[in-house]
Amino acid sequence: MKAIVFDNELKLDNNYTKPISQKGEALIRVKLAGICNTDYEITKGYMGYVGVLGHEFVGVVEEVNGDDQSWIGKRVVAEISWGCDDPNCEWCAKKNYRHCPNRHTIGIWKKDGCMAEYITLPTNILFEVPENVTDEQAVFVEPLAAACEITEQLHIEPMSKVLVLGDGKLGLTTALTLNAMNLDVTLVGKHQNKLDIAKAQGVKTELLNTFTPRKFDVVVEATGSASGFEMSMSLTKPRGVLVLKSTVATGKELNLAPIVIDEITVLGSRCGQFPPALRLLEQNKIDFTPFISKTYTIDEALEAFEANKLKDTLKVLIKI
Amino acid sequence: MKAIVFDNELKLDNNYTKPISQKGEALIRVKLAGICNTDYEITKGYMGYVGVLGHEFVGVVEEVNGDDQSWIGKRVVAEISWGCDDPNCEWCAKKNYRHCPNRHTIGIWKKDGCMAEYITLPTNILFEVPENVTDEQAVFVEPLAAACEITEQLHIEPMSKVLVLGDGKLGLTTALTLNAMNLDVTLVGKHQNKLDIAKAQGVKTELLNTFTPRKFDVVVEATGSASGFEMSMSLTKPRGVLVLKSTVATGKELNLAPIVIDEITVLGSRCGQFPPALRLLEQNKIDFTPFISKTYTIDEALEAFEANKLKDTLKVLIKI
Repeated sequence: MKAIVFDNELKLDNNYTKPISQKGEALIRVKLAGICNTDYEITKGYMGYVGVLGHEFVGVVEEVNGDDQSWIGKRVVAEISWGCDDPNCEWCAKKNYRHCPNRHTIGIWKKDGCMAEYITLPTNILFEVPENVTDEQAVFVEPLAAACEITEQLHIEPMSKVLVLGDGKLGLTTALTLNAMNLDVTLVGKHQNKLDIAKAQGVKTELLNTFTPRKFDVVVEATGSASGFEMSMSLTKPRGVLVLKSTVATGKELNLAPIVIDEITVLGSRCGQFPPALRLLEQNKIDFTPFISKTYTIDEALEAFEANKLKDTLKVLIKI
Repeated sequence: MKAIVFDNELKLDNNYTKPISQKGEALIRVKLAGICNTDYEITKGYMGYVGVLGHEFVGVVEEVNGDDQSWIGKRVVAEISWGCDDPNCEWCAKKNYRHCPNRHTIGIWKKDGCMAEYITLPTNILFEVPENVTDEQAVFVEPLAAACEITEQLHIEPMSKVLVLGDGKLGLTTALTLNAMNLDVTLVGKHQNKLDIAKAQGVKTELLNTFTPRKFDVVVEATGSASGFEMSMSLTKPRGVLVLKSTVATGKELNLAPIVIDEITVLGSRCGQFPPALRLLEQNKIDFTPFISKTYTIDEALEAFEANKLKDTLKVLIKI
């Protein structure tokens, strides 16, 4: 089968071995995949991962190895990790597979990714895509779930002022998601064209160079830069919460003293569970259409990855 | 009056002007003061502070300017900050003066400290010392309140495993405090003689070089070093809490990625309110006697500050 593989270099492999589903797994025909910045990081050596790339996708179940044959023919998405399912594993017991110490993570850790014609996955991490949600929206469910994760971890009160700093995919998705939950969100970034995507869907936006610094109850750091992290600290109210969604670039010494002096809570936040994200999609609460910079075919994989690197690119999709 | 003053250099001033209490203030005769590492940092330029040093003390009220004459003759301690008391100030409304943006902080910010024969302070930050608490115990109320602060900010569940990393004054005080609240605490440090102080009062202790790394629900970073912060991250369970009590030394680039990957909460924690600390002292739940390395007179102030710098020193007290 065709697969986009990283093995010291990024390549399109036209003869990658088609996976065979094990007991409890489904064989899924992938229809559409998205390039995430993590995929790009992997091509620079992140996690030391080698194999098929990708963890954002929508596909159709073709076979099931096991009792759960009802999945066959269903259009599905899948959470990106699964765990040991040991009854004593506190994480798996809560279906919170992404913290199981023995987890597999699609396209990142001990498991081939979704940028291939087929992928096999345990049926217990699959979710059926609601009928009214297109493939082009469904493919965003994973980053959307990561934004929903914030409200799993943190009770944001209705009167809280929330700042999202950074107008890349992560910042836009986070601002749209929290806004869709009726929270009081302001998105601040450097790019009017990107801010306008959120603004068109109801988010308050401000350009960084005309933004008047003030304190927020909750600040989501979505720039991925050390200077963005420091700015986020300075904009968080005493006893407020700074949500750290991206692994901050570390080209700089960080002074963490403001965290202690203002008793700030820094909340690390990663991937999320899919049901709340699927609800948002099903109810058309967020439209990801303006995120799509371009859709490539799998044969154009290398070109797609090049396009992903460009500063103005938001989401690059790959039709498989 | 005699006062220990920092004004580009540390000195004993025998003719410092005795303060005059303003409306709502008490004039307090200081009996005993403690040297905190913050005082030492100030002598190296921290906060740009100039004036009388010190914020840990016990004293006796001699005069009150205002209605509240009942304070006269009482032995008191004082919280280290007071606020604007504007009815619209959310911090002052909760007596949480330490976050008021217009606060004064004794010996640190806009207010002379306690290492002098007299200090004037607003009566609303004073607390009477219970009769059965000696001066030598009462002088520890401020760092003790800072340890109690953790449980004001964070609900630590009875089954949670708590690690305190670092066996200096801060680590010892924190471990003893959380242990006094019946929490499951392990103190890890490099110095058997210091660990033994906590062990003798019921805390589980382990020497760092024989400590087997494992995950804890709550880790309190009390080393003040960047490497201690990194070790604390690695010992915090996914979704666990890393309490940051000291302003981490910043001679090093920090990689904050583990915070995101393991969704760790970093909780900055500073000073605390006095009543819970006074309860611990009144009920003899913690004995600070073994913390006292030596007590100097105010005339020996420079010698006392030199002693405070030595690695083996815990608390240096100054009798005034």
